[in-house]
Amino acid sequence: MDKHFVSTTYGNGMASSASIGDHKVIMDTTPDNGGTDTGPGPKRLMLASLAGCTGIDIVGILTKMKVTYSDLSIDTEGTLSDSSPKTYIHVKITYKIKLTREEDKAKMEKAVALSEDKYCGVMAMFRSFAKIERDILYL
Amino acid sequence: MDKHFVSTTYGNGMASSASIGDHKVIMDTTPDNGGTDTGPGPKRLMLASLAGCTGIDIVGILTKMKVTYSDLSIDTEGTLSDSSPKTYIHVKITYKIKLTREEDKAKMEKAVALSEDKYCGVMAMFRSFAKIERDILYL
Repeated sequence: MDKHFVSTTYGNGMASSASIGDHKVIMDTTPDNGGTDTGPGPKRLMLASLAGCTGIDIVGILTKMKVTYSDLSIDTEGTLSDSSPKTYIHVKITYKIKLTREEDKAKMEKAVALSEDKYCGVMAMFRSFAKIERDILYL
Repeated sequence: MDKHFVSTTYGNGMASSASIGDHKVIMDTTPDNGGTDTGPGPKRLMLASLAGCTGIDIVGILTKMKVTYSDLSIDTEGTLSDSSPKTYIHVKITYKIKLTREEDKAKMEKAVALSEDKYCGVMAMFRSFAKIERDILYL
């Protein structure tokens, strides 16, 4: 079984630096929570992770299908529980894309469905705790 | 209910840039997966998110308890499922800390327990799909 390893170090207060392979990601929290806002909050980072994961699938699948496009972006909106610990209970994913050929819409739908059902591990994990809703917006 | 919003844009291939408030996080994947390795992989970013979340709790609680320390770091190791979509099925969290006063160990244990049970939303979400194991290493 594969393993992933991340080391996160603290220096000054709540700000931290995560080493992910050769890459570093700074995290922090806002002053009202005791932080200094030098980086994104960890919970929001999970929404980035979700978009990053499904986006890699979409780009890979569209490329294989010879679909050309521009302006791909993915919005992820998470609704938090009222009770503590606050978790995402609902997540809306909006795929935005400008297809070169309008007739490739079916292929885009297929790519999103494949990511949802087969490939995107992050989405599968999110589905354990949140209801996922998704939409595709053609620009 | 609070909402969090992240917008992630794609320009060139699988690399993406997530806008989280005023902060940006680059994600990518490795060349063997079709990427260019310009940023961390999205799945590993979830392990960073977990460490960042529980770390904010620990720093906040130790500060309130007047516990002084140095060299705080948090390792997160995720074991992936063999089957696709690959999800984390087991996560080991190792808290490393150098306490100024050895007698503050009980307070550190308490801080970790509070983060686990009450405060850390990311850990609560992880618990929906993975077995969590944790350890504290006193330096």
